[in-house]
Amino acid sequence: MIIFLKPNLPIKQENEFRRFLADKKVDVVPVVRRNQTLLVVTGRFSESTKLEVKQHPAVASVLETDRSYKLAAKSFNKESSKIKLNGHLEIGGKEIILMAGPCSVESKAQIAESAKEIKSAGCQILRGGAFKPRTGPYDFQGLGKIGLHFLKEAAKTHSLKVITEIVDVRDIELIEKYTDIFQVGTRNMQNYALLRELGKKRKPVLLKRGMWATYKEFLLAAEYILLGGNENVILCERGIRTFVPETRFTLDLSAVAYLKHETHLPVIVDPSHGTGRANLVRAMSREAIAAGADGLLIEAHLDPRKSFSDADQAISMQELNKLVKEVKKVARAVDRI
Amino acid sequence: MIIFLKPNLPIKQENEFRRFLADKKVDVVPVVRRNQTLLVVTGRFSESTKLEVKQHPAVASVLETDRSYKLAAKSFNKESSKIKLNGHLEIGGKEIILMAGPCSVESKAQIAESAKEIKSAGCQILRGGAFKPRTGPYDFQGLGKIGLHFLKEAAKTHSLKVITEIVDVRDIELIEKYTDIFQVGTRNMQNYALLRELGKKRKPVLLKRGMWATYKEFLLAAEYILLGGNENVILCERGIRTFVPETRFTLDLSAVAYLKHETHLPVIVDPSHGTGRANLVRAMSREAIAAGADGLLIEAHLDPRKSFSDADQAISMQELNKLVKEVKKVARAVDRI
Amino acid sequence: MIIFLKPNLPIKQENEFRRFLADKKVDVVPVVRRNQTLLVVTGRFSESTKLEVKQHPAVASVLETDRSYKLAAKSFNKESSKIKLNGHLEIGGKEIILMAGPCSVESKAQIAESAKEIKSAGCQILRGGAFKPRTGPYDFQGLGKIGLHFLKEAAKTHSLKVITEIVDVRDIELIEKYTDIFQVGTRNMQNYALLRELGKKRKPVLLKRGMWATYKEFLLAAEYILLGGNENVILCERGIRTFVPETRFTLDLSAVAYLKHETHLPVIVDPSHGTGRANLVRAMSREAIAAGADGLLIEAHLDPRKSFSDADQAISMQELNKLVKEVKKVARAVDRI
Amino acid sequence: MIIFLKPNLPIKQENEFRRFLADKKVDVVPVVRRNQTLLVVTGRFSESTKLEVKQHPAVASVLETDRSYKLAAKSFNKESSKIKLNGHLEIGGKEIILMAGPCSVESKAQIAESAKEIKSAGCQILRGGAFKPRTGPYDFQGLGKIGLHFLKEAAKTHSLKVITEIVDVRDIELIEKYTDIFQVGTRNMQNYALLRELGKKRKPVLLKRGMWATYKEFLLAAEYILLGGNENVILCERGIRTFVPETRFTLDLSAVAYLKHETHLPVIVDPSHGTGRANLVRAMSREAIAAGADGLLIEAHLDPRKSFSDADQAISMQELNKLVKEVKKVARAVDRI
Repeated sequence: MIIFLKPNLPIKQENEFRRFLADKKVDVVPVVRRNQTLLVVTGRFSESTKLEVKQHPAVASVLETDRSYKLAAKSFNKESSKIKLNGHLEIGGKEIILMAGPCSVESKAQIAESAKEIKSAGCQILRGGAFKPRTGPYDFQGLGKIGLHFLKEAAKTHSLKVITEIVDVRDIELIEKYTDIFQVGTRNMQNYALLRELGKKRKPVLLKRGMWATYKEFLLAAEYILLGGNENVILCERGIRTFVPETRFTLDLSAVAYLKHETHLPVIVDPSHGTGRANLVRAMSREAIAAGADGLLIEAHLDPRKSFSDADQAISMQELNKLVKEVKKVARAVDRI
Repeated sequence: MIIFLKPNLPIKQENEFRRFLADKKVDVVPVVRRNQTLLVVTGRFSESTKLEVKQHPAVASVLETDRSYKLAAKSFNKESSKIKLNGHLEIGGKEIILMAGPCSVESKAQIAESAKEIKSAGCQILRGGAFKPRTGPYDFQGLGKIGLHFLKEAAKTHSLKVITEIVDVRDIELIEKYTDIFQVGTRNMQNYALLRELGKKRKPVLLKRGMWATYKEFLLAAEYILLGGNENVILCERGIRTFVPETRFTLDLSAVAYLKHETHLPVIVDPSHGTGRANLVRAMSREAIAAGADGLLIEAHLDPRKSFSDADQAISMQELNKLVKEVKKVARAVDRI
Repeated sequence: MIIFLKPNLPIKQENEFRRFLADKKVDVVPVVRRNQTLLVVTGRFSESTKLEVKQHPAVASVLETDRSYKLAAKSFNKESSKIKLNGHLEIGGKEIILMAGPCSVESKAQIAESAKEIKSAGCQILRGGAFKPRTGPYDFQGLGKIGLHFLKEAAKTHSLKVITEIVDVRDIELIEKYTDIFQVGTRNMQNYALLRELGKKRKPVLLKRGMWATYKEFLLAAEYILLGGNENVILCERGIRTFVPETRFTLDLSAVAYLKHETHLPVIVDPSHGTGRANLVRAMSREAIAAGADGLLIEAHLDPRKSFSDADQAISMQELNKLVKEVKKVARAVDRI
Repeated sequence: MIIFLKPNLPIKQENEFRRFLADKKVDVVPVVRRNQTLLVVTGRFSESTKLEVKQHPAVASVLETDRSYKLAAKSFNKESSKIKLNGHLEIGGKEIILMAGPCSVESKAQIAESAKEIKSAGCQILRGGAFKPRTGPYDFQGLGKIGLHFLKEAAKTHSLKVITEIVDVRDIELIEKYTDIFQVGTRNMQNYALLRELGKKRKPVLLKRGMWATYKEFLLAAEYILLGGNENVILCERGIRTFVPETRFTLDLSAVAYLKHETHLPVIVDPSHGTGRANLVRAMSREAIAAGADGLLIEAHLDPRKSFSDADQAISMQELNKLVKEVKKVARAVDRI
């Protein structure tokens, strides 16, 4: 059960109501959102208590829930959530959102030129890693802070928004200055310390599915962020670990259709990591949109063979142009733009 | 290396050439196709032998290959194979082929009524199992021969073609009388005795991917059939075993894109088994077509809740109608019809 | 529910009882075993019917079951089944049974010499494939019938029993003449035509787990054989498909412990296929026995590097000797010999 | 290549050598260990440079490496690493180390009583979570700091060492005060910020394998810690995600045998999480020791049914006693104690 408190309820009355619940031994977690405070009931309660709560003067309404994720569930918000970036761009609306860029910011010139190409291809958001979580400690770890700076500048020049990855909970304030969307990578999907801190922010968070995670675990990870009051969570399918050796991961596009039934949150697909093969990216992008995804996150590089990281999966800018055209056609076939 | 013998080469000269190869210790497997005999070289050979072979009077041409599957490889046939059913229907051409029907033939009336609905929805092929491979020996095993009879009759009445499953190598002659396409189920993908016998036939074979099979293993299984001289092999992605508990299988749509790069054989997708959830079938069908699949194999039932088998994944005839409409729109977006 | 008919019940009375059940709409599958006929009830029945059945003069006893596999379930036979080979060797008893030999019979001399080494290492059963199910059609497919002959002869000379694989349902009579145990490979675990025919035999069947199969599916496959009246089914864990690239398969040794709780059938482990790496075979063999396995199936070759098939996983005869010594020590630590 | 500097090399000479390397464009990462400084070469270098390095007066010796993990590789330390806890207990030596305790510290009395039982069963280390990483935000999250206090006190009373989990990089200093071993959970195996910070400590770290991780990824995660100079890394296999529904995870015991070939670090097994089923824990524990594991990490609870978390997998104290006895017998069979 979720209890919606009356808007602008004086703190004194809220506290009284919380004491009332405590007396009834009803455990709740408070969620302070932009316009409203919710109390998520986490334990059991009797039918009579439920009735009393419903009729309590502090309460606007209550919502029954039957999922372990409550704020992420479709029942919480029957309409799809639309996440606005600076009032303009809307993720989860009718328009397909295209995020593209290199795996890593490699230099000022590289990201500037990339931004130009990406804008011209018709994408809205520039991606690029400055702090890279790499499997091996001897691999290129990203340019760090200076990379963030190059990234933001390049995006600004071409009126693009920025998405970049956060890997260390202690870097949130730093990254926040440079990005429009925090990206949480697959390895950190269950880094709860990080999720909780991002929940305290209001900037959108793109949460990538753990390569091992069930749909339920994925939605529960989103719930950790939502519970902090940050409503702006975007889910991203990026491939799971399976036995198939021919692709780096198996892109699980059933996830898109399933999540669209289960949650109101926008769903994005990363076909680059999801396959690890540049020559499959266009087809998988068309599929994702046909499935109902709200956008794509694509690795595109000026010269894929020279990419500092993930060279096998990055597509060229020519390929990106083709991809956008194909995706737009499929988008129209499923009543999107 | 594949050696193409001259068309209409007298058997005497063929034998002479085979002896010539044997003397050179070149191992080959002969493949007798409709218009031509090929010899697939399976072992090693020197450059000088290769030259001699090329210049031999019995030889029309040779083809270098670098894959472990040779007849299934794209290099064998740069254009996509088009498989004709009785001269009319073409699988692998521009038109998307839709195969639909109940999991099992349950009764004469059921399959007759199903055929009518499936035709009216715009599908071209009627599916329905008479011999069912069931996980448990106490489950409904299909109506057997009488089921085949009902199936063929229903299809004929509505000018549909028939696809049905073959589970026992000893039933090939029987099933051949009733079906237009042999279906080999996922559990039999590596039933080599069955594959070899189907290779001796000329009727098309739809080979489902083993739920555990890599792409290479899948193509090698197709190669077993092709090697017998049967050129009419259709591949079918139907979901793989992964850790994801929310779907019965994980439909691996990267397979479609990958196979389209690797082979000239048509690729069909089964979104019903591939997810095991009726409410995901439409979305996955759209995806499959967006990825470049040549058709779909769909479980549709007059009353899904009453299906004798696989009730959770069958869609209703209304859903099937919606699905066909959506799929047609996506097909046009990828230049298919 | 399983109904045990009275021993030596006249056929007339059995038929009367079957009619009685039919009248009550109780569906059963009859199982004719060495000493007794059982009727496995497959559908629903009322409590009053159950009572009537229990008291019926044709009935010796009834057994309630709560698993989908009924004859394979522990409840069917609280003691472990002991499978005797020609009155001597007992699989499932206190003694650990060691089956070893090359992947394929390659020549008369090779299998003869292998048999000698295997006997001297302390193994009881000689393995070797004559009909090999190979992933690719161009790979060595086994020597066929002459290989069976070499195998049997080699085993006889050294007082070993024989196990060899059956891949084609049409070869059962042939293979039966040469082998003491039919081996059903992983790819055929759900080849129901084959399982049913083996159920009609009385010779033991070693059923390998499908590399994709759940424990339940594995036990249901065994049930297909048991249902034919063949009580001599041996289960074999041989590794499953997972994402781990460093081993060919992941040997799932939880399966041994789980199966020992769930079934009365003996459980054997194949650490050679289960890992695909010769240098892990000894450790995995010790584990299997520590887990409670009744025996091992091991690929050992006179010169592993020269093996015609599966060279990476075969151990040398010296390694086999070491392995047997280590396994015997672990066997004693778990009260086996 | 790893370059070992001469012991007690003056900093001036070290710096000169570093400049020498920089001039030659040889990239290195310095590792400051207890007795020695190493330089891990991460990029390419010529044969002539190698020779110059070898002969340089600052250099004690160089080590060639062919693995992507260098400090974790067997080649770095041909003997097994033995990790000492306060001079007494040795992990990785001849003695099997048993770590047991409840999933969570639930109360002072519970952990005190648990410690008593665990000591009396013959275990050496007490486990118990105070900060729990839970899949859902509404689940019990642990007692926090007071839990650490109860845990340490209970351990001290019974002369046990302590292991507890670290989930937030900001909690390292706090946890360090209470624990003898930092536990990094499966979800954090690639939380590189956390791994790097733990690398700066000298207290042992037990690193659990990510449920999705290959062996190589696991060893590279250990390398992140080793690279900081912390030599005391213990690896822990705890089960991977597979399709098998009957167990919570699939305990991959090939990992133990494989890791013992690849690394000098001690390997521990967690059969409780590894199966998620209490009735499999004893068998899997015997297996782990038979495979060559250096110890076990076991969930044992005073009353498993009442456990606050992971109730299905915790064993009772009586079971723990049985387990220890069985494990000791297997230990002797593989020349351990």
